[in-house]
Amino acid sequence: MNVEFINPFLSSLLNVLSTMAQTELKPGKPSLKKDELARGDVSGLIGMVGPQTKGSLSISFDESLALTIMERMLGERPDSVNEEVTDMVGEITNMVTGGAKNLLGEKGYEFDMATPVVVSGKGHTIAHKCEGAKVLIPFTSADGNANIEVSFDKL
Amino acid sequence: MNVEFINPFLSSLLNVLSTMAQTELKPGKPSLKKDELARGDVSGLIGMVGPQTKGSLSISFDESLALTIMERMLGERPDSVNEEVTDMVGEITNMVTGGAKNLLGEKGYEFDMATPVVVSGKGHTIAHKCEGAKVLIPFTSADGNANIEVSFDKL
Repeated sequence: MNVEFINPFLSSLLNVLSTMAQTELKPGKPSLKKDELARGDVSGLIGMVGPQTKGSLSISFDESLALTIMERMLGERPDSVNEEVTDMVGEITNMVTGGAKNLLGEKGYEFDMATPVVVSGKGHTIAHKCEGAKVLIPFTSADGNANIEVSFDKL
Repeated sequence: MNVEFINPFLSSLLNVLSTMAQTELKPGKPSLKKDELARGDVSGLIGMVGPQTKGSLSISFDESLALTIMERMLGERPDSVNEEVTDMVGEITNMVTGGAKNLLGEKGYEFDMATPVVVSGKGHTIAHKCEGAKVLIPFTSADGNANIEVSFDKL
């Protein structure tokens, strides 16, 4: 999987959080994921199916970052990862994947998106079970960390 | 969503676990999921995209049940939910969804499957973010419990 394919997901997350929640994340160096697992407290996942390939994406947030995003969007900070927070994480997952889909469609990579699923639980880990490369993109911020993982068969 | 649509997922899980791991689960009554969340220690998730609809499926296992399935398949019981266990849960998720896809295809419901993602973490919860109904199918066994959740837009 090449950089041309990873950057749309990276820039789409930065763009969505900056626009929706005035939150600036600092992207780290993308890496090919081997054994290590991304860890988070609340994660959005979405499946992708295209004519040439299929895959999956996840975005994991530290609880502190998810609550801060909610606070900036709604003006009130929830006490914990409640249903409003998981709705927001599902919506962000949809928007980030949709933004990347548009950018990649312009380059001839087409896929359709399934509906998102949101997992919550302290320190859960996520493993993408895909034959192709798994790319991990770490993000840091003063409010907590986030990770994107994206994996496609045959790219 | 009607019974005709749910039964293929139910029978497919019973069939896969009985064939692969000589494990008999007892299905409970499917219900429309509202606020309650299925909880598990290791879950497989997969996205589905079809011409008329899209959706997501999850299968959550208690750790004790996942370890027993591994023991019956490999003859040795892992100490914890390791990478072999998450591989197995991903494979079961693929096989169950593939089995249901074949049964539903015969009835004219077509969809393609994304690649599976496996989440692990004690007592995590899963929320399917989908406009359509979310159906929860509980399963019990002497070795622990499992839950299927399936959700489709527009069915």
